[in-house]
Amino acid sequence: MKHFLKKEKELRKKAFADKQIEETVDFLRQQGIETVWGIQAAYDTSLFGLKDRCGFGSHGLCCRNCNLGPCRLDSEELPLHTRLAAPKVKRSSCGKTADNMVAGMFLQTVLRGTSSHLGHAIHVAKAFVAAAKGSENFPIKDEAKLYAVAKELGINTDGMQMLDIAKEVGQKAMEDLVGQGEGPMNFALALAPKNIDKLAKAGIVPQKGAAEAIVQGIHSTAQGMMSSTDHLIMSCLKYGVIDVLALYISTQLQDILLGVPTPKESSIGMDALDKDKVNILVHGHVPVLSEMVVHFANKLEDMAKEAGAKGINVVGTCCTGTEVLMRLGIPMAGSTIMQELVVGTGLVDAVCVDVQCVYPSLSSITKGLHTRLITTMPELRMDNDTYIEFTPENAHESARQIVEEAIKAYKDRLSDRVFLPKAKGHKLMGGFSTEVMIDVLKKLNAQQPLKPLVDLIVDGSIQGVAVLAGCLSSKIQTDMSFVIMAKELLKNNVLVLATGCAATACARHGLLTGEAKKYAGDSLRGVLETIGKTSGLNGSIPPILHFGSCVDNSRCAVLASAIADYLNTSIDKLPLVASAAEHVVEKAAAIYMGVMALGITTHIGVTPKLGGSPYVIDMLTNKLESITGSTLIIEIDPVESAKKMIHHIQKKRRALGI
Amino acid sequence: MKHFLKKEKELRKKAFADKQIEETVDFLRQQGIETVWGIQAAYDTSLFGLKDRCGFGSHGLCCRNCNLGPCRLDSEELPLHTRLAAPKVKRSSCGKTADNMVAGMFLQTVLRGTSSHLGHAIHVAKAFVAAAKGSENFPIKDEAKLYAVAKELGINTDGMQMLDIAKEVGQKAMEDLVGQGEGPMNFALALAPKNIDKLAKAGIVPQKGAAEAIVQGIHSTAQGMMSSTDHLIMSCLKYGVIDVLALYISTQLQDILLGVPTPKESSIGMDALDKDKVNILVHGHVPVLSEMVVHFANKLEDMAKEAGAKGINVVGTCCTGTEVLMRLGIPMAGSTIMQELVVGTGLVDAVCVDVQCVYPSLSSITKGLHTRLITTMPELRMDNDTYIEFTPENAHESARQIVEEAIKAYKDRLSDRVFLPKAKGHKLMGGFSTEVMIDVLKKLNAQQPLKPLVDLIVDGSIQGVAVLAGCLSSKIQTDMSFVIMAKELLKNNVLVLATGCAATACARHGLLTGEAKKYAGDSLRGVLETIGKTSGLNGSIPPILHFGSCVDNSRCAVLASAIADYLNTSIDKLPLVASAAEHVVEKAAAIYMGVMALGITTHIGVTPKLGGSPYVIDMLTNKLESITGSTLIIEIDPVESAKKMIHHIQKKRRALGI
Repeated sequence: MKHFLKKEKELRKKAFADKQIEETVDFLRQQGIETVWGIQAAYDTSLFGLKDRCGFGSHGLCCRNCNLGPCRLDSEELPLHTRLAAPKVKRSSCGKTADNMVAGMFLQTVLRGTSSHLGHAIHVAKAFVAAAKGSENFPIKDEAKLYAVAKELGINTDGMQMLDIAKEVGQKAMEDLVGQGEGPMNFALALAPKNIDKLAKAGIVPQKGAAEAIVQGIHSTAQGMMSSTDHLIMSCLKYGVIDVLALYISTQLQDILLGVPTPKESSIGMDALDKDKVNILVHGHVPVLSEMVVHFANKLEDMAKEAGAKGINVVGTCCTGTEVLMRLGIPMAGSTIMQELVVGTGLVDAVCVDVQCVYPSLSSITKGLHTRLITTMPELRMDNDTYIEFTPENAHESARQIVEEAIKAYKDRLSDRVFLPKAKGHKLMGGFSTEVMIDVLKKLNAQQPLKPLVDLIVDGSIQGVAVLAGCLSSKIQTDMSFVIMAKELLKNNVLVLATGCAATACARHGLLTGEAKKYAGDSLRGVLETIGKTSGLNGSIPPILHFGSCVDNSRCAVLASAIADYLNTSIDKLPLVASAAEHVVEKAAAIYMGVMALGITTHIGVTPKLGGSPYVIDMLTNKLESITGSTLIIEIDPVESAKKMIHHIQKKRRALGI
Repeated sequence: MKHFLKKEKELRKKAFADKQIEETVDFLRQQGIETVWGIQAAYDTSLFGLKDRCGFGSHGLCCRNCNLGPCRLDSEELPLHTRLAAPKVKRSSCGKTADNMVAGMFLQTVLRGTSSHLGHAIHVAKAFVAAAKGSENFPIKDEAKLYAVAKELGINTDGMQMLDIAKEVGQKAMEDLVGQGEGPMNFALALAPKNIDKLAKAGIVPQKGAAEAIVQGIHSTAQGMMSSTDHLIMSCLKYGVIDVLALYISTQLQDILLGVPTPKESSIGMDALDKDKVNILVHGHVPVLSEMVVHFANKLEDMAKEAGAKGINVVGTCCTGTEVLMRLGIPMAGSTIMQELVVGTGLVDAVCVDVQCVYPSLSSITKGLHTRLITTMPELRMDNDTYIEFTPENAHESARQIVEEAIKAYKDRLSDRVFLPKAKGHKLMGGFSTEVMIDVLKKLNAQQPLKPLVDLIVDGSIQGVAVLAGCLSSKIQTDMSFVIMAKELLKNNVLVLATGCAATACARHGLLTGEAKKYAGDSLRGVLETIGKTSGLNGSIPPILHFGSCVDNSRCAVLASAIADYLNTSIDKLPLVASAAEHVVEKAAAIYMGVMALGITTHIGVTPKLGGSPYVIDMLTNKLESITGSTLIIEIDPVESAKKMIHHIQKKRRALGI
């Protein structure tokens, strides 16, 4: 992995690709605020790499589980300057080998990811259960989706009342998440019925009561527990599948509660902030909160005007920003990695967070500003926060209180300490989904909507499908893994779906617009134009279909599963590939292990902390294929990455004889 | 914490206090097998400490959660040689301060501990539920305890069948562990009803469905989640309480299934291995397995004789060894930290493990021997293991298969590669419990059994009670923290209870015998002799009462709670103190946070990974008192430690006016 780390460094030396980021980082540095890029730079400027990121930790060769340690292992895989500090041991105090340690640390990472998505799903499921009881806070907005989900779950809805159906759906979700039942998760059978046998063969069919599995999973990573390298990696796959199911449950229930997204024109960029209005930044992942905030922002416009503002402007970042973009057209102020910049403008009156990806640095940044840092869920408290707990029961009161708090804060805004970069943001079109795709395709073939799509793949107009997903990183040239890869993929007539921060990066470089069809190869461009016309949009659809938040990666899995079902094959046979090129958070690891377990080969473009074990790397990048039909591709250079993804698609095409 | 680390080093330079350990470590070193002490020595021998244990990790100033990192922070708290490699940053890439990071890493540790004990409790509860269905594998052995537990849980047993009562108890346990119910855990109300209000005030009353709480707890430790230092530490307390309840549930159910332990004379030492017999080492924590192995070892004696052995000899280590010692008088071959030595003798034909504290090094040690490494639970697989899954349903078949495997292995024993140290082991008396104590005290006062004990405390014959618990460490002079402290405490007329490895260390130094009363001060010695006579034992009871395995720490909590109830006060008011002097595993952290939450001041004698945050240390060692009435005492020197514990007891006595 040493050469990967070198390549990363080379890439991150390049200038910022987004001018808004560049300008704001400079401004904040002058203000004495160091951002995620500044901290990275501090590591980079050290002599001989002596003060670089820790080599042991970067290679997974450090264990701090118990108090016999911390243990760090010597290894030929380590860079020279790290080996200078390496003790003469190749095992931990308790006897873990490098392979054991690397795999064990990776499982801990995956488990934090899976627990995060389960935590999200539990919050949503509880709101859903309240909705099914007829809560006024959460009326069910999408009955059609409710019926569709109920059908997938095998619920006979004949003669049932709508809320009774919802009750049963909610019960099945809760059973999957925190139940005591036996047998495979209800939603596992719904998502990928044809894959269950293969998962069963690998011993990784997720059982009802995922929370219990998490307890035993964490248990297995404690001192003196699981040390079989093979079983540790299989556990990563198992918890990866649970993760994907948690995504799926969240998306399905959110769609029923809030409506399936439909294409929306909106924008992304820090200029979404409005100097004359009360600016509320919604940040996090759980849309039941952010939707409610938008709702009360509309209601309390007059109060804002009384406070001297021209109104209330809700903008988003991170996945909850994506959620309100997809359903309500709310603009995004930036990607998650830009949260320090957006808040640092001094224009945000309240940043309202729910869970995940919220940088602790917001505590110190808001401390020097008028900005209220509002936390809403007990799992995410911050130093100097204003805590307004959001529950299914008090949803209205909390959302109102949050908006009122922002209005109050507006009055304290320090008008001489505001900043907006000169560079402008970008237009985008978001809000695609499996349902939207199928609806469009139905206009081409009402009986077999998937047929036109499959035909285009078979005839080569579309060579295959790539999903760009996951975070953005300060370890390479931020954004550009995705932007460069996307352009390469499009040029080679690969249809690109994007979610989460990957999608927002593409959006900030103008790729989520109809005009960006120019990057597509001839045959793909033709398809985009046809679909644009068919769907009644003005011109081409964007060459990159914005499939939603990170949680909505399940939408891509649903589409893949549907195509596989239609072809009566398994997902791993499809000319399909995914990339979490700039993966940062633990959730990314959980997702990529999960989609790999489902058969989707996945690329990562920032070095994972696995370098200490060539055995583990060989398992993931090679041996896994015999179990899941998929592998992990590790490649830092974006152009090379795209080539490898295209190569994978071609391999699958050949195997299918197309 | 720098001076603490220095003191540790000074202590571990001393010779082994146990001659069996010394001889066997030497023998294994000649065989090319490095033990936990050898690995520690490798860190110690480096120039200028350059290759010592990582200073960042040792101080909690390293975070590898996400792929923006690993991040290590500079701090004045770090030793000089560590600072040489420190980057010029005081925050992580995502903006965590040193306080945030130290507290967050500590919460992860506590959560692994709590998950471990929950995992154990779930295994036991499932066996219990099978028993309640009338399973032949698990007949209920202790009806009296069943009725007692049912009563504590508020179950009206009038006219109920025994198995129906068991069903209800099992249901309440499952509800607490993995249920969806609302309200405080059933067992929380049973254990410490008078403490619930105080816990509620601190917002840490554990709710039913601990597994869901674990999911949200792990969720809260992922990137971009909980960063409030105060809330992170409060979470540690919250999950500590859940941990103690998991212990309590396990102990209560195990007692019903297998019987409340009663005083047993047995022994500890490697000479418990018998050269002429098939030796099975039971290792781990869950007694439903080890008891079954003992049962089938008795049944299959003839088969062993046919194989040329004189019979089957089951010996124990770790907590499951303690469990079969307490209930069946099975001898222990050594403490957990000696597992490599015991297996390394070449005399163990099968080491049968369930969960926790099983060193991965056993994989490589057994690989060079005939010894079968038998794993039995899906959470603990090892390289080169023989997996014989143990479930409530197949308990008999598995246990039989394990014993048969050992007999087969015996035939392969390499007779020229066996070793037993010359030094001899020690006799001990184990198997005390709250019930045993109350029974004895009833002979002094049938109506108010606690009165004689409380009177002795009030009149000063017993100055207070100290609980010695937790692991043994290779970071100080192994065993001696406990041995030296115990002698100091006894001399000062403090009654000592001991559990887990702390108890086995005291046992290996002869302190769990009646003769050891000589270490007690005059008044305490008198008490021990009186109780010895009253209880019908031959002479004095041991001055250290062996209260069982680590899980049985709950027995001490039960006793403390009973005394507090009797005095109509809360636990924190009692002249009571605990020590996990040589804490190693994550479970120790979970337990000590849990008992501190219940109001019991606790000592640790090996440096915790908290040194990077003076704020966190101040919270734990000082500020906490205003919330829980307890603090953490950190002190490495054993004599000093005992002094501080006695000082605490005296302080509490003064406050009570006695």
